[in-house]
Amino acid sequence: MPAAAATTKGAATRDSIIDRAYQIVRRDGFEGLSIGTIAESVGMSKSGVFAHFGSREDLQLAVLDASAQRFTETVFVPALRERRGLTRLLAIMQRTLDWMANERGGCPMLSAAIEYDDRPGTIRDRVVHYQTRLRSELVRAIRMAIDTNELRADTDADQLAFDFFAIELAVHHDARLFGADGAMAHAGRSLSRLIDACRA
Amino acid sequence: MPAAAATTKGAATRDSIIDRAYQIVRRDGFEGLSIGTIAESVGMSKSGVFAHFGSREDLQLAVLDASAQRFTETVFVPALRERRGLTRLLAIMQRTLDWMANERGGCPMLSAAIEYDDRPGTIRDRVVHYQTRLRSELVRAIRMAIDTNELRADTDADQLAFDFFAIELAVHHDARLFGADGAMAHAGRSLSRLIDACRA
Repeated sequence: MPAAAATTKGAATRDSIIDRAYQIVRRDGFEGLSIGTIAESVGMSKSGVFAHFGSREDLQLAVLDASAQRFTETVFVPALRERRGLTRLLAIMQRTLDWMANERGGCPMLSAAIEYDDRPGTIRDRVVHYQTRLRSELVRAIRMAIDTNELRADTDADQLAFDFFAIELAVHHDARLFGADGAMAHAGRSLSRLIDACRA
Repeated sequence: MPAAAATTKGAATRDSIIDRAYQIVRRDGFEGLSIGTIAESVGMSKSGVFAHFGSREDLQLAVLDASAQRFTETVFVPALRERRGLTRLLAIMQRTLDWMANERGGCPMLSAAIEYDDRPGTIRDRVVHYQTRLRSELVRAIRMAIDTNELRADTDADQLAFDFFAIELAVHHDARLFGADGAMAHAGRSLSRLIDACRA
């Protein structure tokens, strides 16, 4: 961590840079982010920004971490307050679909996945880390709904998590190009069909 | 069309610029494409490139058109040689999944969708045009399989096309981050389940 971040004021400045960078990424993608553009946007010198982030990649990674954090707070933290089992699983799915349809500018993690999936390096590694974790959380929620006897014991949790994730991607795509209402209606029917097929 | 493209040699040069631009887009996305980078890449002056494309946006649109053309030739042209009905529908799906899993650098149309879905303008309009057409072609192929009595008469073609497209997106995502074999195995099971639920 660069020295400037070690003080309270430094940490606040760092957070405000990340907030602004997050807005830029949602509009222009991670490739649209540079130390120069962010410095201009927050009214700092480039060396001022470099005092908080050693490189453009450090800044991009910080935005990726912030995006994962925001997703966790919006989707998982409230869903984990729901009862274990199918109720919690459906809360995760519904909140994820809302995020996918409505997050202004689109989901930064999906943007990073498209931008870096074919480019080996630290950013791709971080995307793989977060997307692996997200899929594992989905699998874990499905297994809980099996444990509570709400889903059948022979439910293929990995397969169902893949199918859920597919719906999330389609909502992200359709909501932005064709409109959120139609996308959410389609997703609701897909989700019901998948769940009904696995009900105990 | 700028004057330079009106001759055979001009058209060949234009095509070679688009080919190179297509490679750049697959690696860096549409935002990574500029008249400057493409001029350097093909060894022409910027004004030489401008003689073929009046603006950066014209070049981006030409790459989008080339991508749609390439997808049509890879997926739909061979699939349309298959027997009308379920055989043709499955050929379209299988070829699309292969494209999504294996197209080097990723599908440019999906990259453009992520980059421009929230930015009103000519590029977004073109993406909406192509994605609307693609979904219509899927719906049409599903309806043919209903007409041939291979899928049930009450099959919701729009819903099934949404579900098919969701699988395509998930394969594109998973193949690049987690590996093609697992992604294709999941997609195959999802596809079978969807088709089996609609079989007449």
